[in-house]
Amino acid sequence: MRLKEAGELRLLQEIRKRHSLFSAAFAADPEIVVGIGDDAAVLSPRSWQTLVTTDMMLEGVHFDTSFSNLASIGYKLVSVNVSDIMAMAATPRYLFLNMAMHGDTDIEDFWLLFSGIEHGIRMYDLKLLGGDLSSSTGPCMLSATLLGTSNSFVTRSGAKPGDRVYVTGSLGDSACGLEVLKRLSQESRQVIKAIDFIHEFRPDAGDSISFEQGISSSMDFSTALPLIKRHLAPDARASSAYASAATSMMDISDGLFIDISRLCDESAVGVEIFMNRLPVSSEMTAAAGLLGLDAEMLAVSGGEDYELLFTAPSDIAEGDLPGATCIGMIKEQGRFTVSSSGQRREIQPKGYQHFANT
Amino acid sequence: MRLKEAGELRLLQEIRKRHSLFSAAFAADPEIVVGIGDDAAVLSPRSWQTLVTTDMMLEGVHFDTSFSNLASIGYKLVSVNVSDIMAMAATPRYLFLNMAMHGDTDIEDFWLLFSGIEHGIRMYDLKLLGGDLSSSTGPCMLSATLLGTSNSFVTRSGAKPGDRVYVTGSLGDSACGLEVLKRLSQESRQVIKAIDFIHEFRPDAGDSISFEQGISSSMDFSTALPLIKRHLAPDARASSAYASAATSMMDISDGLFIDISRLCDESAVGVEIFMNRLPVSSEMTAAAGLLGLDAEMLAVSGGEDYELLFTAPSDIAEGDLPGATCIGMIKEQGRFTVSSSGQRREIQPKGYQHFANT
Repeated sequence: MRLKEAGELRLLQEIRKRHSLFSAAFAADPEIVVGIGDDAAVLSPRSWQTLVTTDMMLEGVHFDTSFSNLASIGYKLVSVNVSDIMAMAATPRYLFLNMAMHGDTDIEDFWLLFSGIEHGIRMYDLKLLGGDLSSSTGPCMLSATLLGTSNSFVTRSGAKPGDRVYVTGSLGDSACGLEVLKRLSQESRQVIKAIDFIHEFRPDAGDSISFEQGISSSMDFSTALPLIKRHLAPDARASSAYASAATSMMDISDGLFIDISRLCDESAVGVEIFMNRLPVSSEMTAAAGLLGLDAEMLAVSGGEDYELLFTAPSDIAEGDLPGATCIGMIKEQGRFTVSSSGQRREIQPKGYQHFANT
Repeated sequence: MRLKEAGELRLLQEIRKRHSLFSAAFAADPEIVVGIGDDAAVLSPRSWQTLVTTDMMLEGVHFDTSFSNLASIGYKLVSVNVSDIMAMAATPRYLFLNMAMHGDTDIEDFWLLFSGIEHGIRMYDLKLLGGDLSSSTGPCMLSATLLGTSNSFVTRSGAKPGDRVYVTGSLGDSACGLEVLKRLSQESRQVIKAIDFIHEFRPDAGDSISFEQGISSSMDFSTALPLIKRHLAPDARASSAYASAATSMMDISDGLFIDISRLCDESAVGVEIFMNRLPVSSEMTAAAGLLGLDAEMLAVSGGEDYELLFTAPSDIAEGDLPGATCIGMIKEQGRFTVSSSGQRREIQPKGYQHFANT
């Protein structure tokens, strides 16, 4: 059945029904005064601060349904918004959704997309409090607004000279995953699209993917899939372990160099990045080698890592910040990389820019 | 110059610059802790409740650039969100924008759209606190999220038997305006598109518009333009005059009959609507007559009126609710219209439904 045969009201009723499955928690949340169903949701937050972020995802720009299944896309929509709230050291709470899909879309695809969103809602312990559903004459267009609460948020502007610079996880995986996806053979593209990265993601060491465009070698699933998952269905990093130590924080969405430059702008400081300390995964290094890509370039300029980038005073031990790696030092001014031999180079902030790349 | 030549960063810089023109008020708002520029905005509302609404507008679905200029579209995006907050008897405050346009869009068109949004921001005394800007491979897609604050909001669920039913303004103007637009001659379409409905709207009695599709007569500007403005660039109604009296409230976005049915559902009550009390404008009656449309049908089923629909106890005098007309009475059960001769008919809630109409 297609969406235009089902109709908006039936979809909304079904969303409300599914929603009741996990809305038992609503009654237990005294901060929700009015939930879904009125002209607006009403909240009565007990925290000192309410945080708001909003992000868009468009078919053909932010995602490609030829290799991404819709469950991953729905989950990513939630993750990227959660990442912004986490990046302020706050607690993600209330989600508002806008979804526009073509009337010819199969209703199964709608529910696949929604299942990814639901998975995100459960994973991050959010509550869906409203939104808007529309037909589209063209591509699928999604946006979400997420509210968070905090009693002690962290901005981009608190970094001080002498602070250390940290990142969580590993850098460049998502960008490398995208490069892998772009080069897949038609056959492997179908295999990847069929994988449910959010519910049952288990790389199988026995399988491998193949490429087109003159790349003769194949790549093990165990190398490719973690990178592809990082691109198609990224998890947002929890920031609570760093909240009390961090002097400034943001998430890396456009690439390390452009994002650390923004943090330095807002904090009016400089930085030195120790290139030999950048955390990279063995999968990324292996895949980049196989595809002839510059792993270091992917790590510093690759977008959509959704890792946390933060600064903390030098008297905090790296061991007290589990999951984070010290990659540099905040300075009075200047923005430089420092190689293992001590060579300094000025940082060139480069990253994805909408319109400029169309 | 096209958007793809300007690039996202330049647009964002320019928005920030324009923004500073009206952001002097920001410093005076102690409830804004962090504004535009970090991962999320941070608010510290002093009111008891925070309200959130979100709405989408898509080219080809919600608007047609062949007769609507982009300034009107931007203003309408703000108005429809403000209307939702007003409908809860709350104060609209903080706006978050998502805008996606094709890279081939002329940059002048982007600023025309943004000028309409800016006009809304000023008109309703809002603050723009964040958003997302993206290229689109297809139609223009807009969404906005608006936060409001309140110490005594009004929902759809408080109507009691014996309460009177009120609407503000007049009904059916927007739907009638759309019917006029659909029938315009190619020449008149260009004339209408060139009119700036938000900044300098003055119907000129001397001019008239012409139709195609075998409608021989023309229509005075003074009849057509107020209806067209109601469709292309509606104003949201202020609700403060009704807040203390209202037992339930919502805005009419899908048509009186479908929306009063929703209010009755949420309040678990019935209603009688006095058909001879429905407020209709002289322009709507005249235009409907000229086009052979049923004015009463437009008044009860026409969408996008963005008038307020509310109930108030019977001991409140209509004269104490300026701008509102009593159109009915809340009953224990049943939903009926009552004609001037006393004839009762069951209300058939009909309205626009996405997907079903594609």
